[in-house]
Amino acid sequence: MEREIKILENIGEANDLIAGENRRLLEEHNVFAFNIMGSPGSGKTSLLEASLVELGKSYRVAVIEGDLATSYDAERIKRLGVKVLQINTGGMCHLEAASINRALAHFNLDEIDLVFVENVGNLVCPAFFDIGAHRNIVVISTPEGDDKPAKYPVIFRNADLLVINKMDLLPYLEVNLERIRRDASMINPRLEVIETSCRTGEGVDSWIKWIKRQLETRRNTGVTRGFL
Amino acid sequence: MEREIKILENIGEANDLIAGENRRLLEEHNVFAFNIMGSPGSGKTSLLEASLVELGKSYRVAVIEGDLATSYDAERIKRLGVKVLQINTGGMCHLEAASINRALAHFNLDEIDLVFVENVGNLVCPAFFDIGAHRNIVVISTPEGDDKPAKYPVIFRNADLLVINKMDLLPYLEVNLERIRRDASMINPRLEVIETSCRTGEGVDSWIKWIKRQLETRRNTGVTRGFL
Repeated sequence: MEREIKILENIGEANDLIAGENRRLLEEHNVFAFNIMGSPGSGKTSLLEASLVELGKSYRVAVIEGDLATSYDAERIKRLGVKVLQINTGGMCHLEAASINRALAHFNLDEIDLVFVENVGNLVCPAFFDIGAHRNIVVISTPEGDDKPAKYPVIFRNADLLVINKMDLLPYLEVNLERIRRDASMINPRLEVIETSCRTGEGVDSWIKWIKRQLETRRNTGVTRGFL
Repeated sequence: MEREIKILENIGEANDLIAGENRRLLEEHNVFAFNIMGSPGSGKTSLLEASLVELGKSYRVAVIEGDLATSYDAERIKRLGVKVLQINTGGMCHLEAASINRALAHFNLDEIDLVFVENVGNLVCPAFFDIGAHRNIVVISTPEGDDKPAKYPVIFRNADLLVINKMDLLPYLEVNLERIRRDASMINPRLEVIETSCRTGEGVDSWIKWIKRQLETRRNTGVTRGFL
């Protein structure tokens, strides 16, 4: 039993090393990376669809899509004329640094300013695996209910931004936004929060501004932060 | 690398052995067990809340709740006067057979006819771990979108029943139910499908009937089926 745990720890360490390499590689080419996490159907792809064209006016953008199966999400991004690569994990419940390392080799990084990585739809596992991104984002949607930060704390603890999506459904739900904000802030006091509806466009401008601010801040300070 | 994979396989095998033990233990005491899986916020606890009182008229019911953190779900079940045990997995993304084995020791199985196990909210990992239940159920909700069976096939392949929940939100969504049914049926032709809204009560009677039928069928035939 001890040996099993030891080896699993080594897998984690190996992942962290490759994540560090990814970050160095990205910085060498002046590329900034975002890791977008969240439950299946929380609206991760929709958030990208709603903002990529606008972000494309200021930055050269690429997207890496992570899914167990299909290339549906990559096709949605491709339709917008954005460079995209689909990773199919088979059964794996998260993206790991090594997959991102291989994916980055498919791009000419000198032609990219920012990369969005859309992780596998899962509110648990992706939180444990640094992929080498500079910022970590968690997307939840209002129909998921207001107990998610308390019940899935790890992913909120390791995130820089919480997006609360599907705000247009709020009138049809019994969801306490204040509880989401309060619980999330107790778990992670530095977590920023943006409310969006990809359907009505509400809050998408705040999302775009937040993304731009991260790139500007990075450029001003040169500071980046690891995952845990 | 080979060694790592070998040991992970052993973990899987060890889990299957304990799952088999769980099933034998349950059958020894004539207890029938359901494993309820689905994304965070799909409505797994709500489905139990909507049906436990009615099921309690015919059967002696117990519930095992699996969450990373908190005992919120157990408290919801307890309010109905139903026996319940909360498992907190810490960071683990699924319940495994050994946790269920330990949980079952907390109940007097001779006083129980059926056990619902609510797995960790996750559309990926629980699909890979047999916990020793007799039937596996996956709950998705309409706001999650219609691409979930295609994108997360494993959990649908290993399920006996698909519950499509939050039908009351359908008028406010662009979701193609036919696509969900078609994709799910391609992945698993023997998968039964029930549409519910725990809020309006729609379809809850079908859910209760399905549960009762499993217990009757089991009693008539004595046949049980493993996970994979």
